[in-house]
Amino acid sequence: MRAAVLNKGEILVRDDVEEPEPGFGQVLVEVKACGICGSDLHFAKHGGDMLALGKQIEGMPSFGGGDDDGVDLDRDVFMGHEFAAEVLEVGPDTQAAAPVGALVTSIPVLMGMDGIHPIVYSNTVKGGYGERMLLSAPMLLEVPNGLSAQHAALTEPMAVGLHAVNRSRIEQGEGAIVLGCGPVGLAVIAALKVRGLGPIVAADFSPARRRLAEAMGATHAVDPREETGWSAWSSAGSGRPPVVFEAIGVPGVLDDILRCAPAQSRVVVVGVCMEHDTINPFFGISKELNIQFCLGYDPMEFAGSLRSIAEGEIDVAPMITAEVGLDEVPRAFDDLGDPEEHCKILVVP
Amino acid sequence: MRAAVLNKGEILVRDDVEEPEPGFGQVLVEVKACGICGSDLHFAKHGGDMLALGKQIEGMPSFGGGDDDGVDLDRDVFMGHEFAAEVLEVGPDTQAAAPVGALVTSIPVLMGMDGIHPIVYSNTVKGGYGERMLLSAPMLLEVPNGLSAQHAALTEPMAVGLHAVNRSRIEQGEGAIVLGCGPVGLAVIAALKVRGLGPIVAADFSPARRRLAEAMGATHAVDPREETGWSAWSSAGSGRPPVVFEAIGVPGVLDDILRCAPAQSRVVVVGVCMEHDTINPFFGISKELNIQFCLGYDPMEFAGSLRSIAEGEIDVAPMITAEVGLDEVPRAFDDLGDPEEHCKILVVP
Repeated sequence: MRAAVLNKGEILVRDDVEEPEPGFGQVLVEVKACGICGSDLHFAKHGGDMLALGKQIEGMPSFGGGDDDGVDLDRDVFMGHEFAAEVLEVGPDTQAAAPVGALVTSIPVLMGMDGIHPIVYSNTVKGGYGERMLLSAPMLLEVPNGLSAQHAALTEPMAVGLHAVNRSRIEQGEGAIVLGCGPVGLAVIAALKVRGLGPIVAADFSPARRRLAEAMGATHAVDPREETGWSAWSSAGSGRPPVVFEAIGVPGVLDDILRCAPAQSRVVVVGVCMEHDTINPFFGISKELNIQFCLGYDPMEFAGSLRSIAEGEIDVAPMITAEVGLDEVPRAFDDLGDPEEHCKILVVP
Repeated sequence: MRAAVLNKGEILVRDDVEEPEPGFGQVLVEVKACGICGSDLHFAKHGGDMLALGKQIEGMPSFGGGDDDGVDLDRDVFMGHEFAAEVLEVGPDTQAAAPVGALVTSIPVLMGMDGIHPIVYSNTVKGGYGERMLLSAPMLLEVPNGLSAQHAALTEPMAVGLHAVNRSRIEQGEGAIVLGCGPVGLAVIAALKVRGLGPIVAADFSPARRRLAEAMGATHAVDPREETGWSAWSSAGSGRPPVVFEAIGVPGVLDDILRCAPAQSRVVVVGVCMEHDTINPFFGISKELNIQFCLGYDPMEFAGSLRSIAEGEIDVAPMITAEVGLDEVPRAFDDLGDPEEHCKILVVP
């Protein structure tokens, strides 16, 4: 079958990828749409650093016998974890949570007799940048309400925002500042809006991204060169300290937040900075700031995200800026560098 | 009157310091005991850097018209904020919370007609390293139960530990790792013990400090060269993620915590690192850690700290390793560099 793969830092399209075969507890699906995630772009460029950093961590939650430690960047790496797909075939002796022919999505985790494998970067476990892939039969979520595969593919990134909002312990009467309006920041904004929270101050250098922020629910969208999120918060805020969502993920941002955030603010780090970063702890200490680091979502949040999209609480349409075939995946990886042109590109194999 | 002062980085003893005179809302007190705080040692060495760093911070809670911005390190600086004292004289038209002759303590804040001044580092507001000082008449707390001035002087540092424990949102059934067993770490341990929380794993290189940690309530005290706090936690812990108290405050410690802490741990930064520090946000992200920066205490916590000491819930006696007169303050600042010899030195003017 055909799939776009990462090989030695380059995205290539292969015609001869081995057909996946569903084992016990698995289903074979045909990918209908798969979003390109910023973390895939980062992994394509800095995969080696990311794997090395991961190995340094103690107490890291194990993926349970998966092959995530063993990604070989010199061999083809399969990616694509934001997918919607149609069930083609159910594995032997397997009860699936959705029938053949159903449009489904799922948290990107493949359970097998040999352990649990994240569907994220792997030399063996196929992802959504290919024609077909395997999913875990009990984890399938049938896409309801006639929702399109394109919109259902946004379940995963929107779940990241929902999880960050849940983790933030934000309460009614509190508002937020969202720094960075890429897909992650937009997902945070959408989740805040679903909860009826506000004001929501969004900050991004890109005019297109600020328009998207407003479309997703930001009450104020500012260009930091003209007005900082902090000053917009002062005029718009409720008087309470904001919950600050860091959705940029580059070095220097966290220290700037510690320096500028109002006393007693809570900072939620949802942008993934993969590099060393320098901070002045004294800034945090003097204002008793709180930093909550966030990753991923749980299965309930994933299901909640699908429900919010299917029931029209969240309209993901403005975020989808292009659909491409497998042949165009290499160019799409480049195109995503321009925030004016693109937000979420969907691969439709 | 006599007082030890900081002048151009040196501790000097002056015989000709101007007598403080109580204004409206103030009382004159005679200092009976005043602890030397680690932050005073740090300010003596790095006062210029600390003042510069403070000026960079936006959204910093203002001390309300105080002269804290205006500390001139080339003039005499008064210090000493962990005091117990006897009321000598009440200012004009003033109702004091304790009568003349009473032994009192107070949060180190002097209210005056010209604003609110922290009693911490000042060219004008006298602190506890002198014979007499001014306190705010409504803020006085009379020392109960015949508690000595020496023990009452520990109210302030023990309040820092109580505040950190409150801020941590630690609950029954959770335990803690306390990294660093200086006065701050010991105060945290004592506050955890008062709450009946455990296990309490303490880590410090110094044998004397580990003995103190056990005296204050640590259930395990480890030498990180032989066994890390993390491994001691694994064997002693409850299976839940620990609350980690960072009471060391030097660069590198925070990143080491992010790297080693179990997933979902909460990290409470109560050690004050005044320098730049480098972290890998990815360590925190991958385990969804939470960092709570802490500073000081509130007046209720200060009163609670005095009550805990006076009612025997906390025995501060083991922490007091020396009493010195004003003449010996310069040497005491040097002596505190050795954790084997000293923990808390009290100045008895």
